[in-house]
Amino acid sequence: MASGIKCRRFIHSLLRTCKRGHVPVLQRHCHRGMTIEQIEQEVAKLLELKAQIGDDGAKKFVLKTPKGTRDYSPQQMAIREGVFDTIISCFKRHGAETIDTPVFELKETLTGKYGEDSKLIYDLKDQGGEILSLRYDLTVPFARYLAMNKIQNIKRYHIAKVYRRDNPAMTKGRFREFYQCDFDIAGLYDPMLPDAECLKIVAEILQELNLGEFVIKVNHRKILDGMFGACGVPEEKFRSICSAVDKLDKTFWDDVRTEMVDEKGLEPSSADLIGTYVKQSGGTELIDMLLQDERLSKSKDAKEGLEQMKLLLRYCELYGIKDKVLFDLSLARGLDYYTGVIYEAILKGFTNTPSAAGAGEEQLGVGSVAGGGRYDNLVGMFDAKGKNVPCVGVSIGVERVFSIIEAKYQASQIKSRTTQTEVYVVSAQKNLHEDRMKLCAELWDANIKAEHSCKKSPKPLTQFQYCEDMQIPLAIIIGESELQNNVVTMRNVSSREEKEVPRDKMVEEIKKTLRDLQTQSK
Amino acid sequence: MASGIKCRRFIHSLLRTCKRGHVPVLQRHCHRGMTIEQIEQEVAKLLELKAQIGDDGAKKFVLKTPKGTRDYSPQQMAIREGVFDTIISCFKRHGAETIDTPVFELKETLTGKYGEDSKLIYDLKDQGGEILSLRYDLTVPFARYLAMNKIQNIKRYHIAKVYRRDNPAMTKGRFREFYQCDFDIAGLYDPMLPDAECLKIVAEILQELNLGEFVIKVNHRKILDGMFGACGVPEEKFRSICSAVDKLDKTFWDDVRTEMVDEKGLEPSSADLIGTYVKQSGGTELIDMLLQDERLSKSKDAKEGLEQMKLLLRYCELYGIKDKVLFDLSLARGLDYYTGVIYEAILKGFTNTPSAAGAGEEQLGVGSVAGGGRYDNLVGMFDAKGKNVPCVGVSIGVERVFSIIEAKYQASQIKSRTTQTEVYVVSAQKNLHEDRMKLCAELWDANIKAEHSCKKSPKPLTQFQYCEDMQIPLAIIIGESELQNNVVTMRNVSSREEKEVPRDKMVEEIKKTLRDLQTQSK
Repeated sequence: MASGIKCRRFIHSLLRTCKRGHVPVLQRHCHRGMTIEQIEQEVAKLLELKAQIGDDGAKKFVLKTPKGTRDYSPQQMAIREGVFDTIISCFKRHGAETIDTPVFELKETLTGKYGEDSKLIYDLKDQGGEILSLRYDLTVPFARYLAMNKIQNIKRYHIAKVYRRDNPAMTKGRFREFYQCDFDIAGLYDPMLPDAECLKIVAEILQELNLGEFVIKVNHRKILDGMFGACGVPEEKFRSICSAVDKLDKTFWDDVRTEMVDEKGLEPSSADLIGTYVKQSGGTELIDMLLQDERLSKSKDAKEGLEQMKLLLRYCELYGIKDKVLFDLSLARGLDYYTGVIYEAILKGFTNTPSAAGAGEEQLGVGSVAGGGRYDNLVGMFDAKGKNVPCVGVSIGVERVFSIIEAKYQASQIKSRTTQTEVYVVSAQKNLHEDRMKLCAELWDANIKAEHSCKKSPKPLTQFQYCEDMQIPLAIIIGESELQNNVVTMRNVSSREEKEVPRDKMVEEIKKTLRDLQTQSK
Repeated sequence: MASGIKCRRFIHSLLRTCKRGHVPVLQRHCHRGMTIEQIEQEVAKLLELKAQIGDDGAKKFVLKTPKGTRDYSPQQMAIREGVFDTIISCFKRHGAETIDTPVFELKETLTGKYGEDSKLIYDLKDQGGEILSLRYDLTVPFARYLAMNKIQNIKRYHIAKVYRRDNPAMTKGRFREFYQCDFDIAGLYDPMLPDAECLKIVAEILQELNLGEFVIKVNHRKILDGMFGACGVPEEKFRSICSAVDKLDKTFWDDVRTEMVDEKGLEPSSADLIGTYVKQSGGTELIDMLLQDERLSKSKDAKEGLEQMKLLLRYCELYGIKDKVLFDLSLARGLDYYTGVIYEAILKGFTNTPSAAGAGEEQLGVGSVAGGGRYDNLVGMFDAKGKNVPCVGVSIGVERVFSIIEAKYQASQIKSRTTQTEVYVVSAQKNLHEDRMKLCAELWDANIKAEHSCKKSPKPLTQFQYCEDMQIPLAIIIGESELQNNVVTMRNVSSREEKEVPRDKMVEEIKKTLRDLQTQSK
C-alpha cells in the first residue's frame, strides 16, 4: 500500500517535471546513469502503470462545502465553545432567557425588512407547499415570535446561524453561513435603562474575551435625523444620506461628500454642514455643546436625542463603563429599522482607518465586533393591529472573534485540547482488551472521563503517545502482574511519575489526583 | 387607548352576533330600550367607525412558523438544554471530540445516499452559483468531512438540526426541522470493540435521562442477508425484503408477508421461512442455536454475522449492559448504507405494538429513542479512489425525548426555571433606580447573576411578585434608610426571612447564602 502511494507520487512529480521542461531536474536524473531516451521510455511505462491504477484527477464530484461556508474542526469547535461559554455566562448573569426559532421562515415574514439587502436572502426551492427563505438575522424572527405569541416583555438571548448570499471574505471572518449571538430586551420601560444594560453587556463580554482595548461608539437616530434636518437635508433623503454617513468608518469624508452631492443630489452646502458635525465625538461636554448649538437646538428631534444620549452616558457611568463609551456623530449603522440609540464596539488594535479604503472593502480589518440599537417599530410590522413592543438589543460578531482567537492560538503555537478525557486505560501486554473494557466501564460508571484503544492488542508506545498528543493527564496501566496482584499502575502523563494503586481504591485515587492537578494548574 | 380597544371589541361582538342572526342577543339589547331599527343604525355608525380605525380581520400575512417547524419557548429551551447537557456529558466521558458542518451541502453530496427518501430532501432555489440542499442527516456530511480531510480515525459527536420534507406529527415529536445527536467512531479497529462502546453510550444516556425501562434491540445486516439467502430470496431482492422486515415493529407479520409475496414477488415458501426466523429474539443461547441451524449454518454471511453478534454480546456483558441488550432477528432498519451491526433502543412504556397499526403510522407511540449501526462503505463513496473508512455510530432521537419530558413536566405541573438569576435588586421607594444600577454593577462584576427592574419607580409588590414567579432565591432591598445606614436588606424569597447586611459585606454574604441554599437543596 505504502509503496503504491510512493510510486504514484514519483510518477506525478516526474510528469510535472517533464511538463515544465525542467531540464536541470532531468539532468539530475541523468547523473544517476540514465539517458534522456531511457527516461522517456520509463515515463511511457509509468504512464501506462498510472492508467492501470486510476487517475487521482478523475474525481466523480467536487468534494467541498458550499461557497462561503466551512466545517468546524475539533480544534475550531474547542475555541467556539470557549467563546460561547463566556458570552452565554454573561447573558445569564443578566437574567436572560433563551429561545430558538426555525432556520427558515415563510418568505413573506422576511419581505420588506432589510431594504436593499433583501437580494442577499437565500430562498428555498418551491417543492410544493409554502414558500420559504433562510433567516437573514435573528432580529426579524424575534419580532415575529413576539407578535405571534403576544409577548410584551422578555429579556432573551438567541445564538444561532444566519444566512446571507454575500461576497464571502473567509479569512476575515466573513461567511455566508455564520453565527449571531443576540441579546435583546423587549418591553415598555423607562428611557435608556435597557439601552444602558445592553452596553454594559457588550463591555463585560469584550473584557472577558480578552481581545484587547476596545471602544463602544454610540449615537442616536434622532440626533442624526435632527442634524440632517438642521443641515437642510429633505426628509425623504434622511435614510439614504444616513447610509452614506455609515460609510465613514471605511471611507474618507471627501468620498462620502461626493456620494451625497453627486449620487444622492444633496446641496453642497448641506453636505459641508453635515461634515462639520460628523467629525465630532466625545462625552457629556460635547452633548452640552451641541445642545447650545444654534442650528441643532431648533430641532425637536435633535434635542430629544441629545437629552437621551446624556442620560445614557450618565447610566454608563453608574454601570462603571463610562471610559469604554464614546458618543460619535459619524456612527450611523446600515439597517433601516433602528429608531433610537445605536452602537458599535470596535477593537482598537484593529481599528478600520480610511487609509485602507483605496483597496475596497476587502481590505477591512476585523475591528467591529458588536453592534446594535433600539428598534421600536419592528414588532408592529407583524401585529395585525400594528401594536408595537419597544425593543433594544445587541449582536456579538462572534465569527470575527473566532478568527482573532484562532490567529492568537496559531501564533502562540498552543494547541487547545479537543477532548476532556481524564484517564487513558493502557494495556501493557497483548490480549488484555477485556480487562481494559471492564476497567473502563468502572470508570465511566463513576463519571470519570475515560478512553481506551479500540484495538485488541495496541502497542504500549502507541498508547502513551496518544495520551501525550491528546494531553490526557492520567494513564491507568494494566499488565499481567497488575491483574495478578489486583492493582493498577497510575501514571502522570506529563511528569511520567508512576505509582501502584490497589484496584479497589482506584476510582477514589483518580478523583483525588485529578483534583490535585486542577488545583496546581490554577 | 384602552377605550379604543373596548370600543373595537364591542363592535366585533356586535358584528359577530348580527352575522349569526342571534335574535336572543338582539332582544336582550332591545330590553335595554333599543329597537331593532335603532340597533341597525348604531351598527352602521359603528361599521363606519371601524373602517376609520382599521380592520382586525385584514391581516397582511399569516403569522406562523413554516409547516412542521416550531419555535422553542424559554420553558422548552430549559428542557432542551438539560437533555443536551446529559447527552454531551456522556459523549465527552467517552473521549469524543465535536465538529460542525454547514446546514446545506452541495446537492450532489446528498445524491444517491438515501434511496427512496431522497424525495424528502429540501432543495434551495437556484439563485445563481452552486446547487444546494439542506442536510437530511448528520451521517452523510460526516462521511463527506472524513473523505475531504482524509481523516482515518476520529471519535466525534455532532448535535445539529436536520431537515426532512416528511409528513409531520408534531405532538409525537416528529418534525420537518429536528435535532439529531450523533456519536460515531471512525477507524479500522478490531471487531465489535467500537460497536459495543456505542451500545454502552446509548445505555448510559437513556439511564441518565431517566425515561423508564428500555431495551436495545440488536441485529446484523450479514445475519439478515445470510438468512434471506438461506430462505431462497434472490440477492437483488435483499434490500427490498429487508425494508419489508423493517416494518415489523409497527405491522403484523401477515401484512409484511403480503407485501413480500404480492408486492415484491417473493415465493410464498421463502416468505414463510423468513417468518420462522424473524419471530425470534434472545441472547447468546439463541445465537448458539442459530449457529447449529441447518439452513443458516450453510451461509458464510450468516455464520460471520452470528459470530460477531456473539462477540458483541460478550463485550456488552463486560460493559455491564447485558440485561439491556436483546438480539432480535426482526430488527432491520431502513437505511441502505448499513453493512454490519444495527441497533435501536426502545422505551418499554411506549413499545410500538402491531395493534396500533390499523390506524396507520400516525398512531405510533414514541417508543424508539435511539438507533444506529455500522456503515463501512459510506466514506468510500466520497473518496476519489474509493478508499473506505469503517464507521459505526448512534443517533439519539432527542425530539422524542423532549416530548416525553415536556409531557412529564406538564403532568407534574412543575415549572422549570428559565433563567439562572440569583439576586433581584428591589427598590423600596421611588426614584432609586440609580442606586439599583450601581448595586447591580457591583454584583455583576462579582459574577453574581442579578437583575433589577428597567423602570425608574416600580412598585415593591410587583418586584417581589417577579422574584416569586421567576423562582429567584434572593432579593436585595434598598430604601432611603438602607442607603443612609450603608446597609442592604437581604430577603430569602421563598421563606420571606429578611436580614440586614452591611453594604461592604454584601457580595460575600450573598455568595455564602447561595452556597448554603444550594447545599440544602441537594
